[in-house]
Amino acid sequence: MKSLLLIGQSNMAGRGFTHEVPPIYNEKIMMLRNGRWQMMTEPIHFDRPVAGVGLAASFAEAWCKDNEGEKIGLIPCAEGGSAIDEWSLDGTLFRHAMNEAKFAMEDSELVGILWHQGESDSQDGKYKEYYEKILRIFNEIRRELSVPNIPFIIGGLGDYLGKVAFGAGCVEYQLINEELQKYAQGNENCYYVTAKGLTSNPDGIHINAMSQRIFGIRYYEAYRKKEHIYEPLTNEKELVDKCHNRMNTSSEKTYIALERFTLGKISYEELMKAFS
Amino acid sequence: MKSLLLIGQSNMAGRGFTHEVPPIYNEKIMMLRNGRWQMMTEPIHFDRPVAGVGLAASFAEAWCKDNEGEKIGLIPCAEGGSAIDEWSLDGTLFRHAMNEAKFAMEDSELVGILWHQGESDSQDGKYKEYYEKILRIFNEIRRELSVPNIPFIIGGLGDYLGKVAFGAGCVEYQLINEELQKYAQGNENCYYVTAKGLTSNPDGIHINAMSQRIFGIRYYEAYRKKEHIYEPLTNEKELVDKCHNRMNTSSEKTYIALERFTLGKISYEELMKAFS
Repeated sequence: MKSLLLIGQSNMAGRGFTHEVPPIYNEKIMMLRNGRWQMMTEPIHFDRPVAGVGLAASFAEAWCKDNEGEKIGLIPCAEGGSAIDEWSLDGTLFRHAMNEAKFAMEDSELVGILWHQGESDSQDGKYKEYYEKILRIFNEIRRELSVPNIPFIIGGLGDYLGKVAFGAGCVEYQLINEELQKYAQGNENCYYVTAKGLTSNPDGIHINAMSQRIFGIRYYEAYRKKEHIYEPLTNEKELVDKCHNRMNTSSEKTYIALERFTLGKISYEELMKAFS
Repeated sequence: MKSLLLIGQSNMAGRGFTHEVPPIYNEKIMMLRNGRWQMMTEPIHFDRPVAGVGLAASFAEAWCKDNEGEKIGLIPCAEGGSAIDEWSLDGTLFRHAMNEAKFAMEDSELVGILWHQGESDSQDGKYKEYYEKILRIFNEIRRELSVPNIPFIIGGLGDYLGKVAFGAGCVEYQLINEELQKYAQGNENCYYVTAKGLTSNPDGIHINAMSQRIFGIRYYEAYRKKEHIYEPLTNEKELVDKCHNRMNTSSEKTYIALERFTLGKISYEELMKAFS
């Protein structure tokens, strides 16, 4: 099995409203819980009670189309609101994420790292030291997990920032994006993904569910082609539709029925019918 | 800060439906996420997408009443469906739980371990080796975390088992309860808590939300008095009511308003009003 480390702040954790997009159930996509793998359901992260749709589900769904017969596991380690300094090498978040990744790597091969962070550093001139900080962190992740060459996919911050509600304070998000691009361009096996055109929840800071699906497709395109994605993809909405319209297998249907029964949404008789 | 390790299978993780009981928000009760503490919300566990109300919230609420000015942190490590053999000392669940507890113990004092497990071992004569297995696991937890003397609170399995739906197969639950009692009676700082009178979700295996609240009160009573609880408490419903009827502080109200705004349930204007 292959695996991906998900790391950064809330827009990697995912805050898209689950009711705004069709769910993705795919028996080839797993997520880490208590150090073990189980079939992915969203939210993949559990960093906050407000966790929702992130970019990893559509990334993984697109990955599965190109890797038939293989499984991909998602390692959720993003933390809502975390500034880059909170990811310092001796800090809890960093050490915990490395631990989680090592549990995952006991029975999977880490093939990529998906990073999204920077909103919490988009003010007060923090961009000036941002490059040096991510350089140190990314180098250490590669060293700590012994993955010198796997792709690091780094998404930019959305253009909806710096305007309303909780996003209003992120006035220097473009300067952070410049640092992220500089890093991706100047370091091997590292690719930048634009957030152009993505839109937010009413809070003005969190990427909404449909935009997260699109973002995941862009991240995957960067991963697949090993190149920077500076512009929206012409067919990205079509690719999201493909994620949403895939027919579920019988074991996925069984999983969904069991989940609904356990949540009290269907009766035991209805569950038994679903099994027959 | 003090902390409690929550460990076992689904009824420790909690499967009570959140809509069936009033929520508990208490700024003195924390939970572990990504190795760090944040204010507790339910579900505390995230072992499965069906996680819901468990016994830890009412335990912690009752603890807070007796420990004014102190904070309690909950370390969620239970795993739905896990049989006792899955908690073997070299297994992933055990090692992961020990890791989580160690992160928690970097800035808290572990003062108790709440255990509930056994449904997955309530058939095929598995009770015969159950005592030896929990003895080994509990000894190792004490050794690994260097807590030779803190209370281990062990709940019994519910009398609704062995009857319907997914609980029907748990025909030997009473024999498991005998082993749990034998362990609690024969080992220092270990207390048994009865599940008598608790009722289940329609799945016939998971303790429902209100019964989880009651169970948490009983667990706390065992913890507080350092004695076995073999019978329901005469005032347990009243104690649950106290948990539900506590007035929220202004910082709890702020937290709740922020959560609702981030989930898109109230507007920015309504949020600002809540702040003023």
